[in-house]
Amino acid sequence: MIRVGIIGATGYAGIELVRLLCGHPDATITQIISQSFVGKKISDVYPHLKGILDIECRELNTDELPAQCDVVFTSLPQGTSSEVIPPLYSAGCTIIDLSADFRFHDAAVYEQWYKMPHPAPQLLPDAIYGLPELHRTDIAKARLVGNPGCYPTATLLGLAPAVKVGAIDTNSIIVDAKSGVSGAGRASSLEYSFCECDEDMKAYKVAQHRHTPEIEQELSILAQNDVVISFTPHLIPMKRGILATIYATLKNDLSLEGLLNIYGNFYKDEPFVHIYENGTLPSTKAVAGSNHCHIGLTVDQRTHRIIITSAIDNLVKGAAGQAVQNMNIMLNLSETAGLALPGYYI
Amino acid sequence: MIRVGIIGATGYAGIELVRLLCGHPDATITQIISQSFVGKKISDVYPHLKGILDIECRELNTDELPAQCDVVFTSLPQGTSSEVIPPLYSAGCTIIDLSADFRFHDAAVYEQWYKMPHPAPQLLPDAIYGLPELHRTDIAKARLVGNPGCYPTATLLGLAPAVKVGAIDTNSIIVDAKSGVSGAGRASSLEYSFCECDEDMKAYKVAQHRHTPEIEQELSILAQNDVVISFTPHLIPMKRGILATIYATLKNDLSLEGLLNIYGNFYKDEPFVHIYENGTLPSTKAVAGSNHCHIGLTVDQRTHRIIITSAIDNLVKGAAGQAVQNMNIMLNLSETAGLALPGYYI
Amino acid sequence: MIRVGIIGATGYAGIELVRLLCGHPDATITQIISQSFVGKKISDVYPHLKGILDIECRELNTDELPAQCDVVFTSLPQGTSSEVIPPLYSAGCTIIDLSADFRFHDAAVYEQWYKMPHPAPQLLPDAIYGLPELHRTDIAKARLVGNPGCYPTATLLGLAPAVKVGAIDTNSIIVDAKSGVSGAGRASSLEYSFCECDEDMKAYKVAQHRHTPEIEQELSILAQNDVVISFTPHLIPMKRGILATIYATLKNDLSLEGLLNIYGNFYKDEPFVHIYENGTLPSTKAVAGSNHCHIGLTVDQRTHRIIITSAIDNLVKGAAGQAVQNMNIMLNLSETAGLALPGYYI
Amino acid sequence: MIRVGIIGATGYAGIELVRLLCGHPDATITQIISQSFVGKKISDVYPHLKGILDIECRELNTDELPAQCDVVFTSLPQGTSSEVIPPLYSAGCTIIDLSADFRFHDAAVYEQWYKMPHPAPQLLPDAIYGLPELHRTDIAKARLVGNPGCYPTATLLGLAPAVKVGAIDTNSIIVDAKSGVSGAGRASSLEYSFCECDEDMKAYKVAQHRHTPEIEQELSILAQNDVVISFTPHLIPMKRGILATIYATLKNDLSLEGLLNIYGNFYKDEPFVHIYENGTLPSTKAVAGSNHCHIGLTVDQRTHRIIITSAIDNLVKGAAGQAVQNMNIMLNLSETAGLALPGYYI
Repeated sequence: MIRVGIIGATGYAGIELVRLLCGHPDATITQIISQSFVGKKISDVYPHLKGILDIECRELNTDELPAQCDVVFTSLPQGTSSEVIPPLYSAGCTIIDLSADFRFHDAAVYEQWYKMPHPAPQLLPDAIYGLPELHRTDIAKARLVGNPGCYPTATLLGLAPAVKVGAIDTNSIIVDAKSGVSGAGRASSLEYSFCECDEDMKAYKVAQHRHTPEIEQELSILAQNDVVISFTPHLIPMKRGILATIYATLKNDLSLEGLLNIYGNFYKDEPFVHIYENGTLPSTKAVAGSNHCHIGLTVDQRTHRIIITSAIDNLVKGAAGQAVQNMNIMLNLSETAGLALPGYYI
Repeated sequence: MIRVGIIGATGYAGIELVRLLCGHPDATITQIISQSFVGKKISDVYPHLKGILDIECRELNTDELPAQCDVVFTSLPQGTSSEVIPPLYSAGCTIIDLSADFRFHDAAVYEQWYKMPHPAPQLLPDAIYGLPELHRTDIAKARLVGNPGCYPTATLLGLAPAVKVGAIDTNSIIVDAKSGVSGAGRASSLEYSFCECDEDMKAYKVAQHRHTPEIEQELSILAQNDVVISFTPHLIPMKRGILATIYATLKNDLSLEGLLNIYGNFYKDEPFVHIYENGTLPSTKAVAGSNHCHIGLTVDQRTHRIIITSAIDNLVKGAAGQAVQNMNIMLNLSETAGLALPGYYI
Repeated sequence: MIRVGIIGATGYAGIELVRLLCGHPDATITQIISQSFVGKKISDVYPHLKGILDIECRELNTDELPAQCDVVFTSLPQGTSSEVIPPLYSAGCTIIDLSADFRFHDAAVYEQWYKMPHPAPQLLPDAIYGLPELHRTDIAKARLVGNPGCYPTATLLGLAPAVKVGAIDTNSIIVDAKSGVSGAGRASSLEYSFCECDEDMKAYKVAQHRHTPEIEQELSILAQNDVVISFTPHLIPMKRGILATIYATLKNDLSLEGLLNIYGNFYKDEPFVHIYENGTLPSTKAVAGSNHCHIGLTVDQRTHRIIITSAIDNLVKGAAGQAVQNMNIMLNLSETAGLALPGYYI
Repeated sequence: MIRVGIIGATGYAGIELVRLLCGHPDATITQIISQSFVGKKISDVYPHLKGILDIECRELNTDELPAQCDVVFTSLPQGTSSEVIPPLYSAGCTIIDLSADFRFHDAAVYEQWYKMPHPAPQLLPDAIYGLPELHRTDIAKARLVGNPGCYPTATLLGLAPAVKVGAIDTNSIIVDAKSGVSGAGRASSLEYSFCECDEDMKAYKVAQHRHTPEIEQELSILAQNDVVISFTPHLIPMKRGILATIYATLKNDLSLEGLLNIYGNFYKDEPFVHIYENGTLPSTKAVAGSNHCHIGLTVDQRTHRIIITSAIDNLVKGAAGQAVQNMNIMLNLSETAGLALPGYYI
């Protein structure tokens, strides 16, 4: 059994990691590290774990942890990993980091958008961007994976085939993304209070969301060219789910059948990505609680554009599920282990 | 006091008309016509009207109605107005129709998108598109107004200034719109059931929504050129509200300050349209229950695009409130009569 | 025009006061006092007021305020009124206080349940409990009204007739109340965050909620006897609405018709209380946004109990609407002024 | 591997059965019978099953099914099982029925409350009421189990210890239950539409809900006496979850500690029932998606009553999860097989 440690387990992504790992046939959680709840049982913080996982939250000890765990998931606030990840990495740990810190190749891009110094730039050359559908081979060889952001995951899975084959004008890409509120984390600010969010929606951080450079980095690799996009996130009154509606202009004529072929081929062996047939479109509850990404495609002949709708669960394929998928790859387990069950739909 | 008749009062737009007219200083509801509830008190169908408006629903009598009402609102299913509106119009009624039937100049466009013969094409030359911010003068002289659709209202108010001054490439317009479920009407299909809609979102009718030609008709008038757009509606788990996020490429450089000036000038005398300053952005609860449209503007210098977010309440500015606004104009009342109160926000 | 001041206008009850007073034919808001937002326009704090009410929030000046206002609504945190209300009252102000401070006859009861010294016990003999359906005559003569709590309002309106006529065993009363989240106020704690409240429900403060003694005080007056009840509040994932389901054992046989008569008589002249006929039952959206209370009655012959369901909007009849109703009575205006419009239902 | 057939798989309880059985280590779904979707893949009806379970829905063949399945779950509309269950039972099938048809000992009680003839009264002597915490031994020997209703499950688990030890007056029991909308099933009526349910709550079927006699049957067995209760269900704007708040008068003085001991003892070996300590109380999200029941206890010394709050997921412990638990018992598998994972909480 793989021994797993989770640092920062008590945010929503952390607790989803716990949920998924409880069902993993090859892994067992041995260490739950949470600064806020040291000494408390995890089931006292999260009562849904009563009788299922009652282990105690511990303080971080970077000396002992490498010996206690085969893999460590880190879910720390942005930019705080400098004290945590370098020592663990040096000590030989296999690490999957859920923050943005190790997603970027260029520390300067990180610093421009996150407005803070990069906490451990020396590790960036080793770190691999943890989107399996694009970087499986490199992930398999990595000991440090930067788990992708939720919006980028939905967007990149939605765009990759079209960009890869060069079907679209990469200057024309517009991503209009909508997310449930759990994407903001286990927050206690007025902005994310029930009464301020319920029965309401809005765009935010328009033309300035920090996920933009992450998406552009990966699209540029696929396109072998610098790609710049418009990315607009929106807050939606629900807990889980991301729907990215993506617009791009076709370079040449393409039928829906042709587009479905491109996507069908690109994802034909992928266990977690499903392309809807016949112009049908996904809704987020189809992937709620699961690690799947459902994609619908439309060709708008009137405007010579394609419209892609890409649906994921922001906490699963957008965070914890993808992290477990990366762990499976890095530790040479079955890639779908612990991720094979249906989501909950209703 | 203006005597008002409402035909088809028992849908959600109809019942919003009732709510707004109850508070109108110059109008009184004298006739509620509802095929489904003939003989029932409106407060038995809608208990929130108990003790406030208890009048009985009646059957339609196109002979008597003109004498009983100074203005008639019609909220009938698409394409069914042929038996209702022509006789009332001939009899001298002032009519505001909430269906799509009288929004179009060209019956052929209607027939192409609504896939049915136009119910009364002979009236189209007389009908005026009821968006006051664009057609106030013509509305004032009209006796038949086609009240705009909800998505088109949010979209047109969001785009009109930029299109009018020629600041954007009208071939580049993309409208990503999100709506609460009341836009579907008082429906009892599985698709709009609570369990299928709650905690879920999806795009629908991508590249084929019937509001597309309506938006294009009006933008083409503003642009003095044929405009074709991409329009994508989405269903959001809330009752009221539309947020239209609109993308367009700038023809020339423009600063945010410049864009705010354009919008500020265009709407400076408009009582119901508010442009947010300083890059702040609206959320739909700011307009819930009110006839206002709140607009936020962003200039994305990286992509040379503008992003407009336009928020309305689909039942008010998107339907009943705009209908009352049109009535006020047509009958030479104060334009804000019955529409001056704050929405309910929480 | 009555000049109105609102102290503590920026909580949810305060902003509902603003909404209702904007539509009041005889009152105008002249002073908005808010410690948190001094110098800011109220429409910058609450954008739904843009273009409707743009006045600036001011600091409290207990010397000037009496001359500027004919009536003052105070919506301060519990127990903090000692610095505010006594000076205003001495200066001759007419005050409606939305806190619990002036609801009690006995300061000792207040101190036992609120666990703090009463801020101004010297004013208790003058203060009147502001439930018009029970104390209209006294309210009309008062200059200081303690506006009732939301749960007590729903409960007392639901029970008063049965208790008054002695139809039930007052030792048997059980009140199971459910409330939307706005009852917690404009909070920013984790407990009231969207993700913690959405798709969730729970009981809280069982057998210890501070509204219990308030309900018992008023029932004891009606019963002319000490009444002790079980009161259980619950948090429900919605913004507005209280439903109180009340159980009591009949002293003697009583038919549903008999019970409906008792309630019909008790409330026959009340503009804001409606008894549902024929065993139909109210839902909270029937009163959302309105000052009405809708009551449904059942006689459970199998257990010799009556079950009363009483629905109000916690922010309106449970707070701001009732406060305006009290103002109307205290200032000898039409009691329904500013409260006559329908709620919004959908 | 146990071969499982599900008849009526396409309702919400049916699809939860599919979800849970997909994760069951000892069972595999071999037959999905659905009248409505014959010939369609289950993943075309429920897209969350894409790539996980793509088997085709078949027509019912009562001749073939017994040979194809080791156990059959039936989820048919009330009263329609007469054509289905008797032939399967005679053929030797092990059957767990999710309808109310086989919960009752007395066909006359069923007929009085369900207002239809009992479909197969000859099977009632063999059928066992499928609440494991009360009837494990009999379930283990049964071939036909009537899976309990959702409200009765929450209520009986909440009351059983107190009734069993005789701590409460069984004439005083009041059950105020609140349920999410999925309890109404996969409905397409106006009453359960999103706009009619969202932001709304109400009581319904007061003093007449069909779950009342089911609860009374089981409480009477525990009490060894006829028990009659008041039961009031409420509809809450969320999808999953039941919270039953139960009131009963103590026969003798009892401290909270004493009450916790009674419940702790009664449930000490139960894997799915958890009693909260120290007066803490459960919320439904603690059991969302899981087969657990969480119970909180309060002693109200002022009224000499106990108040029990019992939380379950109506689709899991209230239907599908309990059905799987019964299957495990009937087929001598580990009782927690397929039910051991955490729920999803957020």
